[in-house]
Amino acid sequence: MQKHFSLEDIMLMDKQERVHFINSIGGFKSVALIGTSDKDKNTNLAVFSSLFHIGANPPLIGIIFRPSPPERNTYNNIIETGFYSINHINENTYKQAHQTSARYDKNISEFDATGLNTEYKNNFFAPFVAESNIQLGIEFKEQIDISINNTIMVIGEIVQVNIPENCLLEDGFVDLEKANTVTCSGLDSYHKTIKLDRLSYAKTDKEITSLKRIE
Amino acid sequence: MQKHFSLEDIMLMDKQERVHFINSIGGFKSVALIGTSDKDKNTNLAVFSSLFHIGANPPLIGIIFRPSPPERNTYNNIIETGFYSINHINENTYKQAHQTSARYDKNISEFDATGLNTEYKNNFFAPFVAESNIQLGIEFKEQIDISINNTIMVIGEIVQVNIPENCLLEDGFVDLEKANTVTCSGLDSYHKTIKLDRLSYAKTDKEITSLKRIE
Repeated sequence: MQKHFSLEDIMLMDKQERVHFINSIGGFKSVALIGTSDKDKNTNLAVFSSLFHIGANPPLIGIIFRPSPPERNTYNNIIETGFYSINHINENTYKQAHQTSARYDKNISEFDATGLNTEYKNNFFAPFVAESNIQLGIEFKEQIDISINNTIMVIGEIVQVNIPENCLLEDGFVDLEKANTVTCSGLDSYHKTIKLDRLSYAKTDKEITSLKRIE
Repeated sequence: MQKHFSLEDIMLMDKQERVHFINSIGGFKSVALIGTSDKDKNTNLAVFSSLFHIGANPPLIGIIFRPSPPERNTYNNIIETGFYSINHINENTYKQAHQTSARYDKNISEFDATGLNTEYKNNFFAPFVAESNIQLGIEFKEQIDISINNTIMVIGEIVQVNIPENCLLEDGFVDLEKANTVTCSGLDSYHKTIKLDRLSYAKTDKEITSLKRIE
């Protein structure tokens, strides 16, 4: 049986119910840990599921910041220093990743609180998560205020990428499943994946085929 | 072995290689079919993997449009009519969904070309995909131009939701896995999921627990 919800039904939901409902119905999401530090090298780590691809040339990635307090340390550090890391979450770290969403005091680093380790390398200012198989170094480019609900979109350029060598295919595709990257749905549900297929570039006059041959 | 790529390495990649690389390293993505029609009821259907959650109150969802032609019918229809549908993709429809990315002539509907069926209901202007278990009706709210790479962010309000009744949990969470929703990585890789866990709201002073009990 299908169940129908109008906008009125949605707005009549209890606040937490609506948050769970709307956060889950968009589909599975990119979820990652954003690592930052302030100019005095006090580190911060926070889980985000509002990351999205903006473009490949230049390589740009977006994040949405809500106006609420827990994410503001990350935002402040990004604005203050200009750099942040995006670190994939895997089956061994998703519980620690989720724990970073607790509202720790400003003087406590979520790295220390969760036991995840900082990793500094390649002259990048912000800390990476040592336990992450895929690490992106991002340089802040632009902030766009979304006035309709008082959120902020932060656009960054991907200035470095660290991935396991065996996850890179010859056509540039990175096999996230091989890197054990997880996905999430809603605010708190974590999932691993099973590849159905990679499909060929779609043409109007021929059937799509499996790209498994190139892997 | 970990492999490191600098921005320079990324910019030196062949164009298609960079497109695959950057599109995949952000993580698993929401992927869905966007259904529209023009004012004369000529329908269009296109697969998008740049959907993201913007907020729950009001319920808002974002999409990024590239400046390239294939997505422009969708964009034009949204601007012309103000409405579009977002339809989840499942294991039975992902090949047809991918096929919608072929560059069909403007007078050919991707519904007809791929064999997916339109469904009109609840007085919503845009066509839903009948084969989708989760269908969202969206009203256009705002366009934000992203000048840094000439893309467009379209923000819409979720004005109706159709889901299988048995996928809705008591706290508002929608079980996408039960609805057979798939995720994607890169431009062409489709994946089903295996739930690891749902985790409790994180607190600084206690360990997170599994929410499986409420399911």
